[in-house]
Amino acid sequence: MFKIINKNQIETHNKKYINNLKKDYDFFIRKVSRLKININNIKNELMNFNIAIPSWGVETGGTRFGKFPLKGEPNNIFEKIEDCAIINDLIGITKSISLHFPWDNVEDYKELREFTKNYGLEFDVVNSNTFEDLDNYKHSYKFGSLTHTNKNVRDEAIKLNIDCIKKGIKLGSKALTVWIPDGTNYPGQQDFSKSLDRYIESMKKIYAKLPSNWKIFIEHKPFEPGFYSTVINDWGSSYYSAKTLGEKALCLIDLGHHLPNTNIEMIVSRLIYLKKLGGFHFNDSKYGDDDLDSGSINPFMLFLIFNELTSAKQKKHLNSISYMMDQSHNITDPIESLILSAIEIHRAYAKSLLIDHKILDKFQKKNDAIFCLNHLKEAFNIDVTPLLEMIRYESGNAIHPIKFYRNLNYRRKKSKTRAEKTYLINKII
Amino acid sequence: MFKIINKNQIETHNKKYINNLKKDYDFFIRKVSRLKININNIKNELMNFNIAIPSWGVETGGTRFGKFPLKGEPNNIFEKIEDCAIINDLIGITKSISLHFPWDNVEDYKELREFTKNYGLEFDVVNSNTFEDLDNYKHSYKFGSLTHTNKNVRDEAIKLNIDCIKKGIKLGSKALTVWIPDGTNYPGQQDFSKSLDRYIESMKKIYAKLPSNWKIFIEHKPFEPGFYSTVINDWGSSYYSAKTLGEKALCLIDLGHHLPNTNIEMIVSRLIYLKKLGGFHFNDSKYGDDDLDSGSINPFMLFLIFNELTSAKQKKHLNSISYMMDQSHNITDPIESLILSAIEIHRAYAKSLLIDHKILDKFQKKNDAIFCLNHLKEAFNIDVTPLLEMIRYESGNAIHPIKFYRNLNYRRKKSKTRAEKTYLINKII
Amino acid sequence: MFKIINKNQIETHNKKYINNLKKDYDFFIRKVSRLKININNIKNELMNFNIAIPSWGVETGGTRFGKFPLKGEPNNIFEKIEDCAIINDLIGITKSISLHFPWDNVEDYKELREFTKNYGLEFDVVNSNTFEDLDNYKHSYKFGSLTHTNKNVRDEAIKLNIDCIKKGIKLGSKALTVWIPDGTNYPGQQDFSKSLDRYIESMKKIYAKLPSNWKIFIEHKPFEPGFYSTVINDWGSSYYSAKTLGEKALCLIDLGHHLPNTNIEMIVSRLIYLKKLGGFHFNDSKYGDDDLDSGSINPFMLFLIFNELTSAKQKKHLNSISYMMDQSHNITDPIESLILSAIEIHRAYAKSLLIDHKILDKFQKKNDAIFCLNHLKEAFNIDVTPLLEMIRYESGNAIHPIKFYRNLNYRRKKSKTRAEKTYLINKII
Amino acid sequence: MFKIINKNQIETHNKKYINNLKKDYDFFIRKVSRLKININNIKNELMNFNIAIPSWGVETGGTRFGKFPLKGEPNNIFEKIEDCAIINDLIGITKSISLHFPWDNVEDYKELREFTKNYGLEFDVVNSNTFEDLDNYKHSYKFGSLTHTNKNVRDEAIKLNIDCIKKGIKLGSKALTVWIPDGTNYPGQQDFSKSLDRYIESMKKIYAKLPSNWKIFIEHKPFEPGFYSTVINDWGSSYYSAKTLGEKALCLIDLGHHLPNTNIEMIVSRLIYLKKLGGFHFNDSKYGDDDLDSGSINPFMLFLIFNELTSAKQKKHLNSISYMMDQSHNITDPIESLILSAIEIHRAYAKSLLIDHKILDKFQKKNDAIFCLNHLKEAFNIDVTPLLEMIRYESGNAIHPIKFYRNLNYRRKKSKTRAEKTYLINKII
Repeated sequence: MFKIINKNQIETHNKKYINNLKKDYDFFIRKVSRLKININNIKNELMNFNIAIPSWGVETGGTRFGKFPLKGEPNNIFEKIEDCAIINDLIGITKSISLHFPWDNVEDYKELREFTKNYGLEFDVVNSNTFEDLDNYKHSYKFGSLTHTNKNVRDEAIKLNIDCIKKGIKLGSKALTVWIPDGTNYPGQQDFSKSLDRYIESMKKIYAKLPSNWKIFIEHKPFEPGFYSTVINDWGSSYYSAKTLGEKALCLIDLGHHLPNTNIEMIVSRLIYLKKLGGFHFNDSKYGDDDLDSGSINPFMLFLIFNELTSAKQKKHLNSISYMMDQSHNITDPIESLILSAIEIHRAYAKSLLIDHKILDKFQKKNDAIFCLNHLKEAFNIDVTPLLEMIRYESGNAIHPIKFYRNLNYRRKKSKTRAEKTYLINKII
Repeated sequence: MFKIINKNQIETHNKKYINNLKKDYDFFIRKVSRLKININNIKNELMNFNIAIPSWGVETGGTRFGKFPLKGEPNNIFEKIEDCAIINDLIGITKSISLHFPWDNVEDYKELREFTKNYGLEFDVVNSNTFEDLDNYKHSYKFGSLTHTNKNVRDEAIKLNIDCIKKGIKLGSKALTVWIPDGTNYPGQQDFSKSLDRYIESMKKIYAKLPSNWKIFIEHKPFEPGFYSTVINDWGSSYYSAKTLGEKALCLIDLGHHLPNTNIEMIVSRLIYLKKLGGFHFNDSKYGDDDLDSGSINPFMLFLIFNELTSAKQKKHLNSISYMMDQSHNITDPIESLILSAIEIHRAYAKSLLIDHKILDKFQKKNDAIFCLNHLKEAFNIDVTPLLEMIRYESGNAIHPIKFYRNLNYRRKKSKTRAEKTYLINKII
Repeated sequence: MFKIINKNQIETHNKKYINNLKKDYDFFIRKVSRLKININNIKNELMNFNIAIPSWGVETGGTRFGKFPLKGEPNNIFEKIEDCAIINDLIGITKSISLHFPWDNVEDYKELREFTKNYGLEFDVVNSNTFEDLDNYKHSYKFGSLTHTNKNVRDEAIKLNIDCIKKGIKLGSKALTVWIPDGTNYPGQQDFSKSLDRYIESMKKIYAKLPSNWKIFIEHKPFEPGFYSTVINDWGSSYYSAKTLGEKALCLIDLGHHLPNTNIEMIVSRLIYLKKLGGFHFNDSKYGDDDLDSGSINPFMLFLIFNELTSAKQKKHLNSISYMMDQSHNITDPIESLILSAIEIHRAYAKSLLIDHKILDKFQKKNDAIFCLNHLKEAFNIDVTPLLEMIRYESGNAIHPIKFYRNLNYRRKKSKTRAEKTYLINKII
Repeated sequence: MFKIINKNQIETHNKKYINNLKKDYDFFIRKVSRLKININNIKNELMNFNIAIPSWGVETGGTRFGKFPLKGEPNNIFEKIEDCAIINDLIGITKSISLHFPWDNVEDYKELREFTKNYGLEFDVVNSNTFEDLDNYKHSYKFGSLTHTNKNVRDEAIKLNIDCIKKGIKLGSKALTVWIPDGTNYPGQQDFSKSLDRYIESMKKIYAKLPSNWKIFIEHKPFEPGFYSTVINDWGSSYYSAKTLGEKALCLIDLGHHLPNTNIEMIVSRLIYLKKLGGFHFNDSKYGDDDLDSGSINPFMLFLIFNELTSAKQKKHLNSISYMMDQSHNITDPIESLILSAIEIHRAYAKSLLIDHKILDKFQKKNDAIFCLNHLKEAFNIDVTPLLEMIRYESGNAIHPIKFYRNLNYRRKKSKTRAEKTYLINKII
């Protein structure tokens, strides 16, 4: 299997760090051996973990105030896959890519699939974009897409989603995530009930085109780009829609798509309880849908979310879940942000596996809140870095991926071969 | 029919103001005649409007930092009904009272019903209190009630709710509102799924005891007294529970029970859409569950909520809804706050009736957001005070109820006959 | 004085509505005559009211998810001034324009000033833009402007601001508003203290270049485009900076630049108290810096803000304040939004003038909260529409400006002469 | 020195755990030796760390919905000091107690001081309570204290604060914290400027009575018990007041007293920058002023706060800061909560000492956001538990204080000697 990074280089890198790592790992193993947990099972779980990279995530992101591109950015989906390949070569837990159409349209999907496979990567959930007007559109999504009052626009948006499924089939994807920007900026602008009716009606037509082994994920968001209301604004609306559509329809949680102070781990639990949790978009935030790097603001919350997932999994209440990062890297090299974020998510998952849910259950029954919090905190406080590093080492990835990446001088090299990106400024706010 | 306020006094009061009112009302009628609406229908709607007074609302409220009682406060449910009677005599749209058990326990419910009927009042929804331990309790609600991990405590809470139904039947009530304080203060303290399971299980037992013509209302709240999680924390959890229980179970919206920035009118719309809206607890808030006077912070939002209700009613999508004020009058005379709040709610309803929903519908279809907002704003900007005053006048209530009440010197008189209230300070925070 | 709209057309329009308006106005005068206020003074105040239009506000705004231009949009500052002129011809209270540099750079500022004067308009506060990189920049604002760690970048940003002052002098402006996007996306990214030091140091250099009759306004914002921290994030930081700079430095409040639940009217009061309030950017919001139309979400809050201003003015505690709208019109015709927003601001101001602050003061002393709220509510509930319309009528503007504007078919006409705008889609999020 | 817990018992306890601890500690030392930091200095800092216990914190707290006392609770300040002594005997970093007057009034302050000294404890900052009316008060704080419109009430509140200083002098305290509940529930209820004027005027009188070596701390809070406005609502108002009063006046930050999404570490930085940071009230929160256990919701934020403190200390920008826990232990044994919270605060401080601020500074200058975040994260991810345990061990405290405490059966024993607490239910909401 061809990979973008030279295996020898990684081995050379790892040699420098393996001695210290072995000591740290030995200590870690001795430490957790006191917890009466099966570390091999945990390691196995962590080795099989996968989180998709969004194709748009490897490009510099921006805000309505502007964008500041890096030199050496990818210019097309092939160059983006190259960047994804670097990330996965270094960390090994990002083996799949999530595409966004029409952004990632190509002429030959078979070629794209082969190209990607060559890097040891495959395609995850596909995403549809109905929040922008392309030059060749006859309609406009200015006032909505799947819920537009005009049937012609709805039909276009339905078609766009069905096209996504078709492209996804060619690429080996198994699910479509539907996030619609539809909403309003003014009280009275739309009838909330009729909008939801139109949403369900449109989604049914998309749902009807799903292959039998596919799923469709509904992603909710309270606001932006609509600043007064949004059609699928919360998990309640998402759940109702998924329930109405059928078994293949599930809910997707983006960590940034919640009102201030929301207890997100509880929403995770609710959707597991209702058998409607399908996937995640990981990121972190301090104010709104900030799309910051995962775990950069509240890593304990990320851990509590994985606590719900791990607990449910151990109780056999959880089906397979699609994980994806969905971040906006406005001021960093996206490759570095994605590497660190994936590791933070891996870290949160690893820590959640150190919790003994049987013991927790016992003390929950006794309402021993101090014990319960402390039990979670003990797992959270353990430094699982050696475990994550050893997994990378044993899987042939880099012990210190950021260090490795910086030594590559990747951007500088790419800036010679890739066209320079210049973003037009956003003149109007 | 016996009433607490002397009719002649009201007539004398009204005589002073009727001339100006007639001029204002004439102008109002001429003004709205341009709108092509049937003002008689609107007036009829408004005359039939009713909003319940909560029995606890006529006493001074407080915070965890203390309470500051008024002289002349009511000491028992009979004195409270007396205070409710004054309010309704003055404004005429608060003909019912909502009781709270065990706070309003009496020995003879028949006597209480007769006493109340004498004032032209009746009993609305009953409420159960499982957030406090009384001296004679064998159990404790410290760690929950209907969702407690201990079946004995759950059974006590179930029994308390069923007792509420029994008392309500004697009093002529037709519904029970269940708000539970159950929640946690610590991550990990409870299993969110098991708590919800226990909730549904307990509620089923209460539901089974509902008379055929009764309803049960589920009230959600995101936090307080639990500050990490709450079992029935949002409309999604409330809706799922109501759906699972059956047709008699409906959701109740307390305006203060939402996270920051929530679009509450959209939740109103959702629950109407799902045929699960049962009732309201009206109040206003700036920060959390502040329990401020209705319409005192954002009267336009109150209007938007009534816009949803009126729109649904005109489209025959709305069944009867229970309205109640649920406010904490910490620094005002509760009678004054309740009078003003009821009028503010009446005002919001009146303005919503001036919206032409057919026209609105037409421009919503065209995505004419400016027209739609402006159409709502034109209704909101009209001063409906003369209409509300004329309705009070024609119903035999007071044109200026606060002025009338202040002239009564009611508190001073009551302070001679009612025992002085002294609240123990809350020594521990 | 040459104006863009034909006076005769306005007169024809007004003739259709003046009879009803006279009746409404008569009623209004009789109504407020009961309040013992001098309506002529109030009318005078309202006639002299002015709120600036931001030059960028007449173009369609957008979000990071895209923009949807209208046909017939202005393409340059001259066409923008044409649009501003229409607005002011119709409503008469938007006699000034606020420019943004380098967006509004022209070769000949004298020509621009003459052009603008011909429309009866003048230039208000100028604004500097250091949140975008233009093609000809040697530096980049990616990591900040006035607070950048690199002195060269700071110097460029200082120069850009000083250039704004120079341009403003040519245009007849009297103040510069400085809003900087400087902030961070990651904990640890910058030292908060050093950033503030650099800010003060840079601002001192700009301040030194202010003409003696100029002011400089500091605009704070809690987040966006920085999503972890912002250098001038709240009124405390703004006040400290203005205090340190000197008398010509004042604080500017943008209504959307506050954390959830902020009591904005209290910040208005604080800055008046500290003699540091300089100006406003008006808009409304439900979630964050939504830039919605003024008064569209919480008109009562807008009224409370004007209550502070009017109260301070009557007590001679207020100097002149610069008012400007700062909104993003993403889905409406910006001209319509600006007309309605200016009227909503005018409305809030008018209502605040109906408050009797001496009476309010008296009851505040007695802690009669119900009286005080009710006194505000009585002013708020009065429909001042006839007053605003009569002021427009008497000033030669349109009684119903939106109706007038729609009859103009302005956009359709302009779409024939103005180049079509096409916004590039924002490919990366 | 007499202590409440038998030294031998602690030694026996520690013997059981010291072997594992030594291994963990050895590993920790080897691990951090790679960081090129002086671990002895760090250990020294951590050994000298002290955080005060609030006297009210050892009693069960509550909400406006009720309180659920434990058996064996303390009934007076002497019993409370006994409980504080247990905590400090076990963890050694809580050597001082913060009293609250009039709650902790005694007849003989000398006796109280001796009693406390016997336990190896001393008195920290004293606090004044003007949010409750005691039976013997002639006035009422219902409408405010230091800012009341009535001078008599203000004078009483001033006197109460001066009495606190007098008591504090007898007890060996060196500072007074002033938190006032003064605020409003209704728009218009008070004039914001006049309230602040009265605050400054009252505080000047208290300030005048401060001994030369005393400080006065101003604690701000955005809401509760006032739900529309609060006089000292944010750091801006607090800073202005402290600045106006003089050098002895400083600002105190309670972690729970901020609006949603506030960047608290930035406020810490601002007050350090302005040389006005005086102290902290530690707790954690998810929704409002939840008073949850420190570090239980967002331990990374606690670490970021200590990052600011440690960074400033290393740069000699920080004077001595008063640390206190201010939590409400509604459902746990307060002793357990306080032990765990103190350790969490100790932990956050320890981790902040592992940051190399010179390196951080270097990369901040280069705008290397990824490096900077990662540098913080590396310190945060290190498990400092062995360090904290070793410090306790070497100081003669318990390695596992919660385990030790639970074996004591302290509550059961106390419940035999201490009177049972029964809280009256809060009948009115």
